[in-house]
Amino acid sequence: MNRITKDVCGAVDFLRTAVPLVHNITNYVTVNDCANALLAIGASPIMADDMEEAADITSISSALVINIGTLNQRTIASMLAAGKRANERGIPVVLDPVGAGASRLRNETVRKILEQVKIAVLRGNISEVSFVAGLDVSTKGVDASDSDAKHDAVSVAKTVAEQLGCTAAVTGAVDVISDGKRTAEIRNGHPMLGRVTGTGCMTSALVGAFAGACGDCFTAAVSGIAAMGIAGEIAFEQAGSAGTGSFHIAVIDALSRLDGKLVERMAKIDETQD
Amino acid sequence: MNRITKDVCGAVDFLRTAVPLVHNITNYVTVNDCANALLAIGASPIMADDMEEAADITSISSALVINIGTLNQRTIASMLAAGKRANERGIPVVLDPVGAGASRLRNETVRKILEQVKIAVLRGNISEVSFVAGLDVSTKGVDASDSDAKHDAVSVAKTVAEQLGCTAAVTGAVDVISDGKRTAEIRNGHPMLGRVTGTGCMTSALVGAFAGACGDCFTAAVSGIAAMGIAGEIAFEQAGSAGTGSFHIAVIDALSRLDGKLVERMAKIDETQD
Amino acid sequence: MNRITKDVCGAVDFLRTAVPLVHNITNYVTVNDCANALLAIGASPIMADDMEEAADITSISSALVINIGTLNQRTIASMLAAGKRANERGIPVVLDPVGAGASRLRNETVRKILEQVKIAVLRGNISEVSFVAGLDVSTKGVDASDSDAKHDAVSVAKTVAEQLGCTAAVTGAVDVISDGKRTAEIRNGHPMLGRVTGTGCMTSALVGAFAGACGDCFTAAVSGIAAMGIAGEIAFEQAGSAGTGSFHIAVIDALSRLDGKLVERMAKIDETQD
Repeated sequence: MNRITKDVCGAVDFLRTAVPLVHNITNYVTVNDCANALLAIGASPIMADDMEEAADITSISSALVINIGTLNQRTIASMLAAGKRANERGIPVVLDPVGAGASRLRNETVRKILEQVKIAVLRGNISEVSFVAGLDVSTKGVDASDSDAKHDAVSVAKTVAEQLGCTAAVTGAVDVISDGKRTAEIRNGHPMLGRVTGTGCMTSALVGAFAGACGDCFTAAVSGIAAMGIAGEIAFEQAGSAGTGSFHIAVIDALSRLDGKLVERMAKIDETQD
Repeated sequence: MNRITKDVCGAVDFLRTAVPLVHNITNYVTVNDCANALLAIGASPIMADDMEEAADITSISSALVINIGTLNQRTIASMLAAGKRANERGIPVVLDPVGAGASRLRNETVRKILEQVKIAVLRGNISEVSFVAGLDVSTKGVDASDSDAKHDAVSVAKTVAEQLGCTAAVTGAVDVISDGKRTAEIRNGHPMLGRVTGTGCMTSALVGAFAGACGDCFTAAVSGIAAMGIAGEIAFEQAGSAGTGSFHIAVIDALSRLDGKLVERMAKIDETQD
Repeated sequence: MNRITKDVCGAVDFLRTAVPLVHNITNYVTVNDCANALLAIGASPIMADDMEEAADITSISSALVINIGTLNQRTIASMLAAGKRANERGIPVVLDPVGAGASRLRNETVRKILEQVKIAVLRGNISEVSFVAGLDVSTKGVDASDSDAKHDAVSVAKTVAEQLGCTAAVTGAVDVISDGKRTAEIRNGHPMLGRVTGTGCMTSALVGAFAGACGDCFTAAVSGIAAMGIAGEIAFEQAGSAGTGSFHIAVIDALSRLDGKLVERMAKIDETQD
């Protein structure tokens, strides 16, 4: 077992004892799944997006996850206020730039967040993260398409990590996580995860949970993404033939049973160092 | 196999190759189910309801589905803006007038949408569609009640289709779809669908997917409604005895496995022409 | 079988014949579960939170459930308007003060609602209800923690019931319901209910359904809470080992199959009278 896998196993077990409170300002499409994924992995979710309380809720939380999936003027202001408060208090901020590249509003919101808030982890599909990196992208809605794969995930992740001084995670068939110095690749997961809405959002929420529990954001990002990938594999084995509804439920089931031993047995994580 | 059934079989198979992007401005109660139903049938969902991006998102989509289930001042404006943009670009608009007749706000919103936006397909229960037709209705919330059946679904569908120059679909024990010239009746489905929230909303979303993929809105409406009816029958057989929670998941499972052959075997669709 | 258990059995069976329309102004995290739980128990849910229709929807409903889980300025105004209308019409109002104590906005909103709206049933965890009672509490997000158990649930419930002249329900390992004169304790339920988001929200929604159907709010509160507790036990037996996703679905399944006979066999309800 390599070092990063060992760290992930430890993080998965530690999370259940730490029970970090994770503040989510997220979309109304997959918010229930995010809450249940957080509970399943051992965290405590709280959702609050009104300007009058967003920063207060961040203050009592261990991590803040900002997801722009169904952003609006009211919640954009709350995202910024909560993000600034998180920065003041040293609370890690995870950003999921859902659909970046698909509309001017999303693009400007991502730029505004990155200008005003120091992000600890950025997680998206290749087209979303490429957009953040300022690379040429063709976005088709909120789901990554094959044509988005024109940029190499490793170089995109490294570029964004260095640009923003954060951990950048590009999830896809192979997930790539880089903080500019360390780079990990995860070969867990299953294509069926792309046929259920919210598996990306849940992954970002899980990264938030690990960031809140363990402090080291590179390990946190690898842990959250590996957890979802492993859960997807288990879910496919148990329910894949039934259809996407049962698979969806089985993903939550698998997260709720995940522990360090299961990760040790199933993880396919490799790390390279610059 | 009659002509319309053959068309539906073709549409179901074609949809999985076309993967239409479907923009939904919908309620926060059943939005997750709508997204998962769309993914299950082979479409790509996107939800966006802020005034600053609604029309932009419509522009990159193949269909727009407007559902007034939990409308508010902010989203009503977005519905109108997105609908107008869809009309400009020739993108089909599906309207689900959830709870029309239940409040002044819903009634006025439906009237406003119909005045400002050309609808391709209107889908609702008998009381909702009767309300749109200007017929006397007794509405009890958002679910159709027996007393709502005082109007004949066929005449209501035809009336609305002619009034609005669209395809009108009245779903119920027997579903009736009419574009004023052609009229189809579908005898698929199961009463248990009425015991899960969002089966109507999902049906409208599926109609949007077919409208985005195949262009002919009559066939699209029949396809979306038949798909949900068949999925309901399969789900009842597989999970009906367990309860409404398992049945709900089994509906998504069935949609995710649906193909032309399954439709050919199970569809109970008849068509009459004027 | 004691008197209160007999009343609960009767209420559970009666609800399915009464099919009360229940208006929910609730959070976007668990709203789908609330709707499905209401349908499963035999009620008809309606969600509407815009100022322009909230009171109108309350007027046609049998009960109003206010849940502040993801409150915002727009919905707070609607909660107050709907609550006042309910009071004018003699429609029972259930309040779920989610996260009371966790932010100034939540605290002030709860105070505002209690000042302006007469509540029939207040349901929360020990920290939330203690906060309403003006007792010293330590809140950690929206989930009750062990440290919250410093106040005795019976005395907290009685205190709040007398202060507000309502039925107060403190749910936890043992649920306590009091209207100041009668006090019931329920020993149903399972710890796994705490690992699924929304089981508290669903419980409040069920209490609303019973309040709308049977008029007596003490019995309504006991019925709704016992229904969820029994459903949790059945769900654990059927799906607990699979994980929290399957357990979640099994809770809805169990609610959809619940009847007076099942309650008679499983209920662990005791009542004391002052």
